[in-house]
Amino acid sequence: MSETVTPPTFTSATPGAAPSTAVPVQPSRSALRPLGLDATAITGGFWGERQSVNAAATLAHCQDWLERAGWTGNFRHAVTGTLARARRGREFSDSEVYKLLEALVWEAARQTDDDARAELQARCDELSATVAAAQEPDGYLNTRFGRPGQPPRYSDLEWGHELYCYGHLIQAGVAQLRTRGGGPLARTAIRAADHVCATFGADGAGICGHPEIETALAELARATGEPLYLEQARLFIERRGHGTLADIEFGRAYYQDDTPVRDADTLRGHAVRALYLACGATDVAAETGDGELLAAVERQWERTVARRTYITGGMGAHHRDESFGEDHVLPADRAYAETCAGVASVMLSWRLLLATGRARYADLIERTLYNVIAASPAQDGRAFFYTNTLHQRTAGTVPAADRPSPRAESGLRAPWFAVSCCPTNVARTLALLPAYLASTDGGGIQIHQYAPARIEAEAVPGAGRVTLGVHTDYPYDGRVRVVVEAPATPGREWTLSLRVPGWGGPRTAWLVEPDGTRRQVGPGTVHVSRAFEAGDEVLLELPDAPRFVRPDPRIDAVRGCVAVERGPLVYCAESADLPEGADVSHVLVDPHAAPRNEGRTVRVTGTVAGHVDSDWPYAPEDEAHPDPTPAFGELTLIPYHTWANRGPATMRVWLPTADRADKDHLSEGTR
Amino acid sequence: MSETVTPPTFTSATPGAAPSTAVPVQPSRSALRPLGLDATAITGGFWGERQSVNAAATLAHCQDWLERAGWTGNFRHAVTGTLARARRGREFSDSEVYKLLEALVWEAARQTDDDARAELQARCDELSATVAAAQEPDGYLNTRFGRPGQPPRYSDLEWGHELYCYGHLIQAGVAQLRTRGGGPLARTAIRAADHVCATFGADGAGICGHPEIETALAELARATGEPLYLEQARLFIERRGHGTLADIEFGRAYYQDDTPVRDADTLRGHAVRALYLACGATDVAAETGDGELLAAVERQWERTVARRTYITGGMGAHHRDESFGEDHVLPADRAYAETCAGVASVMLSWRLLLATGRARYADLIERTLYNVIAASPAQDGRAFFYTNTLHQRTAGTVPAADRPSPRAESGLRAPWFAVSCCPTNVARTLALLPAYLASTDGGGIQIHQYAPARIEAEAVPGAGRVTLGVHTDYPYDGRVRVVVEAPATPGREWTLSLRVPGWGGPRTAWLVEPDGTRRQVGPGTVHVSRAFEAGDEVLLELPDAPRFVRPDPRIDAVRGCVAVERGPLVYCAESADLPEGADVSHVLVDPHAAPRNEGRTVRVTGTVAGHVDSDWPYAPEDEAHPDPTPAFGELTLIPYHTWANRGPATMRVWLPTADRADKDHLSEGTR
Repeated sequence: MSETVTPPTFTSATPGAAPSTAVPVQPSRSALRPLGLDATAITGGFWGERQSVNAAATLAHCQDWLERAGWTGNFRHAVTGTLARARRGREFSDSEVYKLLEALVWEAARQTDDDARAELQARCDELSATVAAAQEPDGYLNTRFGRPGQPPRYSDLEWGHELYCYGHLIQAGVAQLRTRGGGPLARTAIRAADHVCATFGADGAGICGHPEIETALAELARATGEPLYLEQARLFIERRGHGTLADIEFGRAYYQDDTPVRDADTLRGHAVRALYLACGATDVAAETGDGELLAAVERQWERTVARRTYITGGMGAHHRDESFGEDHVLPADRAYAETCAGVASVMLSWRLLLATGRARYADLIERTLYNVIAASPAQDGRAFFYTNTLHQRTAGTVPAADRPSPRAESGLRAPWFAVSCCPTNVARTLALLPAYLASTDGGGIQIHQYAPARIEAEAVPGAGRVTLGVHTDYPYDGRVRVVVEAPATPGREWTLSLRVPGWGGPRTAWLVEPDGTRRQVGPGTVHVSRAFEAGDEVLLELPDAPRFVRPDPRIDAVRGCVAVERGPLVYCAESADLPEGADVSHVLVDPHAAPRNEGRTVRVTGTVAGHVDSDWPYAPEDEAHPDPTPAFGELTLIPYHTWANRGPATMRVWLPTADRADKDHLSEGTR
Repeated sequence: MSETVTPPTFTSATPGAAPSTAVPVQPSRSALRPLGLDATAITGGFWGERQSVNAAATLAHCQDWLERAGWTGNFRHAVTGTLARARRGREFSDSEVYKLLEALVWEAARQTDDDARAELQARCDELSATVAAAQEPDGYLNTRFGRPGQPPRYSDLEWGHELYCYGHLIQAGVAQLRTRGGGPLARTAIRAADHVCATFGADGAGICGHPEIETALAELARATGEPLYLEQARLFIERRGHGTLADIEFGRAYYQDDTPVRDADTLRGHAVRALYLACGATDVAAETGDGELLAAVERQWERTVARRTYITGGMGAHHRDESFGEDHVLPADRAYAETCAGVASVMLSWRLLLATGRARYADLIERTLYNVIAASPAQDGRAFFYTNTLHQRTAGTVPAADRPSPRAESGLRAPWFAVSCCPTNVARTLALLPAYLASTDGGGIQIHQYAPARIEAEAVPGAGRVTLGVHTDYPYDGRVRVVVEAPATPGREWTLSLRVPGWGGPRTAWLVEPDGTRRQVGPGTVHVSRAFEAGDEVLLELPDAPRFVRPDPRIDAVRGCVAVERGPLVYCAESADLPEGADVSHVLVDPHAAPRNEGRTVRVTGTVAGHVDSDWPYAPEDEAHPDPTPAFGELTLIPYHTWANRGPATMRVWLPTADRADKDHLSEGTR
């Protein structure tokens, strides 16, 4: 790992052709320019299915639960003056309404059917009106604070989440600005942002215990051209890390108030807080041309990815405070790996990818999308994981269908949580997903994520729009075919760039150019530059055989185990695929027998060992566990994101190998 | 492991001769009768040193901090009517004063010097008077509830800890009853107990969120002969597990209100709560002759020890709620293993040992004393571990000397904690430690723990007192010599029973009888029956060579590692003994080279591997970590309980072995 990252020199403006506007992130200085929902669409496949379920089920599910839980009702109680007594939900419940609003905005933007779009916009406007009615004349908007019988405004910056809630409101407003040019939600958000700047400006003080406002204000500055919002974001970033917030039992690192952002070497503390803050810092760095600040975030990302990230891309090891552990503390059982941390990680890596163009950021986005974001919702889109453990030791109990569940349970997906940040966060992420597929850079188009898709964009300035069709059964098939359906101005050369994922290792992928030339390519970005003609095809052949992966030996929690990956997918053993009554505690695999694809599952050679309990579990080698181990055979593994869809089950990603602790009695066994 | 435990048939009364009274636990029905501070004394050695430090430093240290923290002052504020505004400390801070009082009582009882005893009793009486002055006319006593400006009495049974605090007050009062025949502290405790019975009796309802009152009331019934207290303890035990307390985010298992005590199969939830409750259940079972209830506790103990206990004897895996993990969830890093859980575990095992006579309970007491209780206090007795991790990954920072520290830090011992249950709990345990050494059973004397000691007791009824001298350098030397200094009535045969610890494995110990007969003995209890004469010696030779120990393969956290034990001591690697700048992350040991004693340290063959960071810590085997590993040499390990006495350091108990994950590149190395 290279610990030293050279601060990039920002170009004075993002290169590229006519900007795509329907994007969640729009830096004015960056290596790459994003292509949003006005330029990209997912047309089917893995993510197409998930977008359909999100649209057909999850959005309404979230809206129903917000109503049932009373969190939407809080805004109505604010209008009728009954809030202080009647308020329901935690201090941050307003933000769930805002995240749903953002999801509705993106979903409307990606709809090609006019009636469906109009219906979504109407739902969004109606809910926006409910929110707007609760806004105070000076722009303040929060259902928990400031009214008679409630704590005063901003009286609890550590835990009150008022600025955090504004952040999500503003992100929703920015989405509306970028997809409809404005609207009632955008107006509410701008009024709130103006209030924040008036209250927390250069003459003010204070930061929020939960970062989020920073990235939202920077985006609002980009979307409106108002530099005051950017300056406010910058102030929040620079104020942080100086011990303004109270020294709570978790320590100030919990909310990143221990060390200034530009001085820190790693992400730490509460994972979602740390990642949202890093998003804001990246945005501020990009807008202000602050290469040092960007380098600080890149350095933190590098170290966090090398030492504090699960194989799934999940971040956050501790249940106690939803925080990163120390380096290499990555327990598989009780992995926290909050879904929202996955969302935030994708947001951060996307910002860093735009800023730098480095494919590594897209690699982590891919891993996180397939193994955290896709793992959270149930197949029907109506239940969710809040935490994403890598090892479920006892079969979970079926969560209540009619009331919120505790957030930290991992055994089965639940319809809603007392702290229910994840469902709406997944909904907005799935709705805007096409915005993470591709970018332009003035010299061509870069494809970062592979899905059946259609991309229409100016590849080089002034050369007209290019239409690309992406055809693939990825991630189950490694072949990705990019067809130039409509080229640029004839004869104009441009560059199609494709990411070769890092998971494939060196020299395992092939690129076939339109003229049939094949070349072997390795991780990073591969370029094809030519005057493309209609019908030209570029074929990327990525390896799709499953592979065993070993952990860094310092990750003590999974020593002596292998994981199985296939493309970007992490696989797992689930008890539903084991002999009746067996749990995953006893699985052993042979790491010398190559794993094999079978449809979407993977088969490995292994067994389910017998274990005789001893009355004390620590013993000298010569007294240890002479348990008979059955003959090795085939074990079925499934993609991690699909687990817990067949009822209560045990599950594990990391599989103990049989050539290690158990080699002695294995050799006496029937192998 | 035998999962089935046959419920013992209680004898109608504890066998034995004239009872020893200065005991913490005095069952009226049991297999063994305890010998207390009026019958046993530790005369030096490992525990003698610790008792001296406890007497000379820790007791005053605790009393000073209780004063500085304002927790003693709370009782004075109650008298002056200033409490509601001036109160300091958490809701359970009263209990710390009570535990210190209990420690002072036991320490006075064990003093042979009359002046020292009188001084301790005076301190105790003065502090008791401060407490007694705050007691309400009806016996209610708590500084947190019930006065104007405070929440009403018993308005928060989940978290208020009022009954918990009474429990510690009553235990202190019982100690005074048993060692002085009564006194002001005992009177205060009895008034509180009467109030509890009047408030929570058969016509009442409610249990405390934190068990402790149950065992205290049962002991008070034993000490006073008042059956009402026992009945109240029984009511609390039987009420529990029926969901009386609120369903908090941790779940009702947190405070064992999920399942009735007699139905549960394992200890679960908050470890200290679970263990104190089990103590109370054992006491109630013993007094009421309830074999089913005793069997339930034994079953829970068996399963907890087989699946939920650290090699140190530490209990409680999770920081989030200080709870037991699921079976085999025993992470070494961030092991919680609270010191108080160690105290509570010793209390429970002692009760079960008395009830059944099974040596296994004494085995766990020994392991926990040496590796949890002894680990907590610093060498000077003025700083403590609250949690007892088995793997410290980053060197701790020096705790504040002038203010309480957060409880969950593990890097270095701290003088006091915001939640400071452990220091006073260690203090009372060390003061009463001789009471855990030995017992009688009507046919002789049983020695359960080995330390230089003097034991005076009636071995058989009516045969006069026997005096035994125990001479040993245990645990560093395995030889334990028991000398009969004064025999019973000449010619009367009786049985001397000695525990052969389970850690030695089968056929590794030798017993030499007074006539020189040598016989090989295995784990359990060995008996020597004869008409002993003055000067007779029995010699027990336990193995004292260090040994490697492997974990059950289901304890994923430490797969591929060995631990080193020597006698009852667990050893560890501390960075202070590694080459300059190395931390324990990179230690590898060769499990095929036998460890060797060198003084009190142990030497193993091993190395400190080099690791080159990669930018992503999961890789196929063929790409993994081709780091050069230096030649193997000698590594020094120290007794676990002594770590962190040489400044900030990293430490680990479980040592990765070199014949496993790293075997390939080791063979290319310089081994």
